[in-house]
Amino acid sequence: MKIGCHGLVWTGTYDADGIRHAVRKTRDAGFDLIEFPIMDPFSFDVATARAALDECGLAATGSLGLDESTDISSEDRSAVRAGEALLDRAVDVLAELGGEHLCGIIYSAMRKYMEPATPQGVANSQAVIGRVAERARQVGIKVSVEVTNRYESNVLNTARQAREFVGKVGDGDVGVHLDTYHMNIEETDMFSPVLDTAELLSYVHIGESHRGYLGTGSVDFDSFFRALDRIGYDGPVVFESFSSAVVSPDLSRMLGIWRNLWSDSDELGAHANAFIRDKFTAIASIGHH
Amino acid sequence: MKIGCHGLVWTGTYDADGIRHAVRKTRDAGFDLIEFPIMDPFSFDVATARAALDECGLAATGSLGLDESTDISSEDRSAVRAGEALLDRAVDVLAELGGEHLCGIIYSAMRKYMEPATPQGVANSQAVIGRVAERARQVGIKVSVEVTNRYESNVLNTARQAREFVGKVGDGDVGVHLDTYHMNIEETDMFSPVLDTAELLSYVHIGESHRGYLGTGSVDFDSFFRALDRIGYDGPVVFESFSSAVVSPDLSRMLGIWRNLWSDSDELGAHANAFIRDKFTAIASIGHH
Amino acid sequence: MKIGCHGLVWTGTYDADGIRHAVRKTRDAGFDLIEFPIMDPFSFDVATARAALDECGLAATGSLGLDESTDISSEDRSAVRAGEALLDRAVDVLAELGGEHLCGIIYSAMRKYMEPATPQGVANSQAVIGRVAERARQVGIKVSVEVTNRYESNVLNTARQAREFVGKVGDGDVGVHLDTYHMNIEETDMFSPVLDTAELLSYVHIGESHRGYLGTGSVDFDSFFRALDRIGYDGPVVFESFSSAVVSPDLSRMLGIWRNLWSDSDELGAHANAFIRDKFTAIASIGHH
Amino acid sequence: MKIGCHGLVWTGTYDADGIRHAVRKTRDAGFDLIEFPIMDPFSFDVATARAALDECGLAATGSLGLDESTDISSEDRSAVRAGEALLDRAVDVLAELGGEHLCGIIYSAMRKYMEPATPQGVANSQAVIGRVAERARQVGIKVSVEVTNRYESNVLNTARQAREFVGKVGDGDVGVHLDTYHMNIEETDMFSPVLDTAELLSYVHIGESHRGYLGTGSVDFDSFFRALDRIGYDGPVVFESFSSAVVSPDLSRMLGIWRNLWSDSDELGAHANAFIRDKFTAIASIGHH
Repeated sequence: MKIGCHGLVWTGTYDADGIRHAVRKTRDAGFDLIEFPIMDPFSFDVATARAALDECGLAATGSLGLDESTDISSEDRSAVRAGEALLDRAVDVLAELGGEHLCGIIYSAMRKYMEPATPQGVANSQAVIGRVAERARQVGIKVSVEVTNRYESNVLNTARQAREFVGKVGDGDVGVHLDTYHMNIEETDMFSPVLDTAELLSYVHIGESHRGYLGTGSVDFDSFFRALDRIGYDGPVVFESFSSAVVSPDLSRMLGIWRNLWSDSDELGAHANAFIRDKFTAIASIGHH
Repeated sequence: MKIGCHGLVWTGTYDADGIRHAVRKTRDAGFDLIEFPIMDPFSFDVATARAALDECGLAATGSLGLDESTDISSEDRSAVRAGEALLDRAVDVLAELGGEHLCGIIYSAMRKYMEPATPQGVANSQAVIGRVAERARQVGIKVSVEVTNRYESNVLNTARQAREFVGKVGDGDVGVHLDTYHMNIEETDMFSPVLDTAELLSYVHIGESHRGYLGTGSVDFDSFFRALDRIGYDGPVVFESFSSAVVSPDLSRMLGIWRNLWSDSDELGAHANAFIRDKFTAIASIGHH
Repeated sequence: MKIGCHGLVWTGTYDADGIRHAVRKTRDAGFDLIEFPIMDPFSFDVATARAALDECGLAATGSLGLDESTDISSEDRSAVRAGEALLDRAVDVLAELGGEHLCGIIYSAMRKYMEPATPQGVANSQAVIGRVAERARQVGIKVSVEVTNRYESNVLNTARQAREFVGKVGDGDVGVHLDTYHMNIEETDMFSPVLDTAELLSYVHIGESHRGYLGTGSVDFDSFFRALDRIGYDGPVVFESFSSAVVSPDLSRMLGIWRNLWSDSDELGAHANAFIRDKFTAIASIGHH
Repeated sequence: MKIGCHGLVWTGTYDADGIRHAVRKTRDAGFDLIEFPIMDPFSFDVATARAALDECGLAATGSLGLDESTDISSEDRSAVRAGEALLDRAVDVLAELGGEHLCGIIYSAMRKYMEPATPQGVANSQAVIGRVAERARQVGIKVSVEVTNRYESNVLNTARQAREFVGKVGDGDVGVHLDTYHMNIEETDMFSPVLDTAELLSYVHIGESHRGYLGTGSVDFDSFFRALDRIGYDGPVVFESFSSAVVSPDLSRMLGIWRNLWSDSDELGAHANAFIRDKFTAIASIGHH
């Protein structure tokens, strides 16, 4: 199992300097893996990222949220086509990076919708995700759809919705991506969704209820980690946090990051890495119980 | 202490029939009080509401969220003026109803902002809230500002922000309105914000983490009710729930109500009334501990 | 599923008057079932109990804890024989009452041991429980072994120990009896033991962490009830509480009941009945999530 | 604030070798302080302990539980006298060690009582504790009474009982010692007892619900640490764990340690040290919330 960190913990600017900075900081904090935000895969500096990963001995994954112009859950065919092209390019970027996972809000725009999703829109999304996942599978990349809260998408807000969604995707082998921050808002509790997705679960985000330091909010992490252990999960476990201390033009305002929940990324990251690893150490002792 | 129910549990249509229906259902479920959504106080049918309250022996409060055209936290003077006029009218409506509380997202628009609040906008909001609260105080109405999550306002997301905000409002006597649904996202836990606001706390919303049945999500209600008891809170305690089963044109889409979390309002309301009252029964026994 | 109440909520004296009082109070509080403490089945007034159950329309179960003189987990053959005779008589009492469950600390003494259990003692206990369970099965009674905390037995402190124990009982069809009060001390959490026993689970005690009002302690009831729902449990769910307000000569001092956690049994029982039923009402709504 | 470890994590044998082993292991795991079990202060090897502390740069505290022959809460004057002599000697031992705290079940025997405490017994206990605390104060040692669960004493089971108890002790300056393991059984929750004792709180034990690895049971540690922060607690915070992997003849059987909850003390201790320190790191970030 690889313990990772989302790149926006370190910087909101993903030019060459930002990429190098984020990769080195991720390694310094003790993580095995960095999740790159590849909101715009067409401009992502793959060569720099590849070199930084090699230098630091880290694995990489990639995530993104679509926007209105690339919303594959819309009924606008040009947006759907643009979204598919973007996802295809994201798969290529990951393949070039040697990454094994593409995840995030890749099935709709990442935004506060003002209308429910439509059946046609959802069908469009499933069709595209199926093709992208099949294409990704051929280059060794697993595609996972992130279950998110009601304010960031209107398509997948619960694990059971995701299970149904991926069940209707014909091709490929689409996984479910759960995020404790969103689960705390939308799910019954922190163990049911893990049991409900079980072998479909392929990616995990670890975020606190307010997206700050782990252990300073209302997320019931212990139940979540115990459930992961119960189903034998061994995919990536990636820390995610956002504060107004680090601003991403693409993400921060969409995610409502209005206040400072930390100022020292180094301490935050090292704390999160220890927090997650210590949970697994503790869980290994449950065999004695 | 009065136990109440938000009117949107029963109907999304607040014409005369809707008002009568909501008041009667609130009484039938066992509550003492109805919180009217008075998004548009200029058109609210006060006479019908007054008659229904008298018929059913219920108390009333009122809440609302401003919109962009009435956003008193903006830097647009016409919006600020329009917002103040709307709040003034809401105070009048409540006075005519015999209500004692005006609350909600009355200090900004209720919407997903795309920029942080500005200092001038916040100052505008504080000035208006001060005048409205002073005016309300003269007719026996307490004005409370609702702390809400990052996706529904950019001004007040934590109890401590609200404490600071009301501390800067010169006139009036503005209270803090906490809502467990929002607290679950933004606060450290469910008891700290109650202790941090203490005698400023004047209004309480009881909502589950996904806005469905109480006790089926992640909100730590026990800590919250114990904290209320510790500070001697005796203001309104009002149940709030939203499902796509009841659609309000003004609210449902703004709040991201995409799915059905219940279908039977009668059972939901009776359950919530019992849930809240039984918590207080249990808490009364803590004196023995 | 039947919701029940342990008889010691009402009285510590199980003569004819005590039996009638307990049965009537159990019905008045709204329960479906009474669990009789039958510490001494040889003197239990079956006729009175039967008449009271008929009068009130209640079902009955029976529980007990052995003592040193009847400890079937000892290496003293006379104690083991005496324990088996007592359990046989308890089966007869239940058969005469029309009860369907015998449970409790029936596999060892209920006391603070000063030495660990011995392999021979555990084998003795398994042999007796097997014979008693087989005998009970023939008269329609299910025998369940209660997992208890370290201070009340040294044989079964966790659900997994109970699973192993009943797996080694040759005859009969022995079930596992979980109690939330004990689980809160000994288990990892409130859902794992339910999943770990699953179809073996045949009896449930609902007690708070300090044995007072439900919802005033540290037991995570929501996780427990959700786990029951997940495995499709439909056996008895029985409220248990102890306070120095009601003293049983056989039990109170062994259980360390030193202080008053309630004084009004009527309110306590009605509250517990509503608490349990309302949990199941809420859980039924989880299908919507 | 000093983070410490109870000596029985490392060995159950407190001869010179045991003392040296425990002190070195405590240092190796990263702690600042060792709590010595000084069940028999008359035979405790002070010189060896002092040398080991100096070698390792650790602080020390001492704790004990009385037994029937030294039970100062009894009505037997010879036991009360013997208990006072033992406590006086424990104070001397700590003074010789340079320790600053004497704590534990020093106000009664540590055992499963079979009768409630008597008023005369409690008065005896208060009188002795007052004299011992005054004597200790003169040599710079704080005496704290540990609130314990119903199975380990019948005198102090809740923080409020302890507050009342120390309020009646005339001389000295007696503090309250809370232990999360016991709190999980007896208290309403993990924050109320901290607020209820506040400036009386002088010593803290951190133990999991089953006394195994921190974070693998039901104790709500986050609420506890947040409450410590709220009251500005800065006394010792000492990890305590018991498993059948380490057997103390004086304690293990009295405490009902029947099973193995860990086998590797080194990993357990290092994990606990990190667990506690990381909680405080996280809590320091709450100022941002």
